[in-house]
Amino acid sequence: MATTAAVARVRALTFDVFGTVVDWRGSILRELEAFGRKKGIAAEWASFTDAWRGMYQPKLSLVRDGKRPWTILDVLHRESLEEILRQFKVAGLAEEEKDFLNRVWHRLDPWPDSVPGLKRLHAKYPLATMSNGNVALMVNLARHAGLPWDAVLGAEVTRHYKPQPECYRMSAEMLGLPPEQCMLVAAHNSDLVAASQVGYRTAFIARPAEFGPHQKLDLKAEHPFDVAARDMVDLAARLGC
Amino acid sequence: MATTAAVARVRALTFDVFGTVVDWRGSILRELEAFGRKKGIAAEWASFTDAWRGMYQPKLSLVRDGKRPWTILDVLHRESLEEILRQFKVAGLAEEEKDFLNRVWHRLDPWPDSVPGLKRLHAKYPLATMSNGNVALMVNLARHAGLPWDAVLGAEVTRHYKPQPECYRMSAEMLGLPPEQCMLVAAHNSDLVAASQVGYRTAFIARPAEFGPHQKLDLKAEHPFDVAARDMVDLAARLGC
Repeated sequence: MATTAAVARVRALTFDVFGTVVDWRGSILRELEAFGRKKGIAAEWASFTDAWRGMYQPKLSLVRDGKRPWTILDVLHRESLEEILRQFKVAGLAEEEKDFLNRVWHRLDPWPDSVPGLKRLHAKYPLATMSNGNVALMVNLARHAGLPWDAVLGAEVTRHYKPQPECYRMSAEMLGLPPEQCMLVAAHNSDLVAASQVGYRTAFIARPAEFGPHQKLDLKAEHPFDVAARDMVDLAARLGC
Repeated sequence: MATTAAVARVRALTFDVFGTVVDWRGSILRELEAFGRKKGIAAEWASFTDAWRGMYQPKLSLVRDGKRPWTILDVLHRESLEEILRQFKVAGLAEEEKDFLNRVWHRLDPWPDSVPGLKRLHAKYPLATMSNGNVALMVNLARHAGLPWDAVLGAEVTRHYKPQPECYRMSAEMLGLPPEQCMLVAAHNSDLVAASQVGYRTAFIARPAEFGPHQKLDLKAEHPFDVAARDMVDLAARLGC
């Protein structure tokens, strides 16, 4: 095992979740297609899914920029869903149906390597989420997918959305560790760069199909991160787990 | 299974930890005695333990009353330890030894029924801590004792110490539930009363040896809580798990 001295000092791992641990696009697409078949609604569900996720960063930015008060992701997802339903002319859904659709984010499936890899990592390190998802979303997702988190950290408990430095910094503080002893595991270059700027160690995991067949960004590590792994099982091996 | 309609609506369980889930007094006493033998220090370790825990509420009160800024329990424990070491004339400990002693709170053993009971409860309900212990303390304790928490809530993530209503209220909010769909499980009447005042359902668990052989308080449920159980396994049975 060749790990750098810096990596050897890591005492806890934190994880981006959407895309890194779970396949949000594939999971949502499967559910929407099944929903459409059941309800007899024809829509471009792949475009619908991409448009829904496309509203994610703009919505978060309003909170990050102080243009609206703290609002959890479940609420932002729901607002976006209403707009996307109008945009795609999907009408006549009952309140319970919209709530059910919105909670698809609580039922995302993990990538095949995620649970086996996380279990190995969990034997050696405390594992915490570092997600912009709210606590209830993370808890339900973990129970759905079998993710062995020791703590749900990140946005809601720090009241700061990534990539705001407070989100990483306060999460490390809650872990009782200096940022240098925490590692962020993520499939997104920008997330890792932001975490490294507050002192985190970094592990890139390639998820080249996260955004579908035409993904152009985040196909590989574009910065000198501490670790670059093929998947979660590979990460476990590289960390000596 | 006779559960009331109110209990049937519960969607998540939250737990007091010190005393309810883990045997802090027995665990600390065992460690201190072993430490004393190893170091050749004779002290009244039972009194030492009780005096240490005796400073818990007064220290928390200073934070609750706004007389000092937010401070996590690990830090308060450490301050109390310094005072108790002086009081019991235990001198000459190295910094690492004091740090190791203070972190005994991260290594408390569960009551024998806790893990079997929690595992059964976990199959049906999301489980979260509702402790005044900080996140790192709760994470380390859970890994030491094998406690299957889905989330670490309570004091540090809400920045309010129990029995402040914000601690219970904000924790329910993070679970995405109205307080009426949350249950607090605790061995302390006052904790349950405070939680019930913000709308929580309540389950009392008797821990008549928590404070040692001469315990006088909290020997039984003194209010009409929703459930009163002998131990965690009994609670699981009463909740149909």
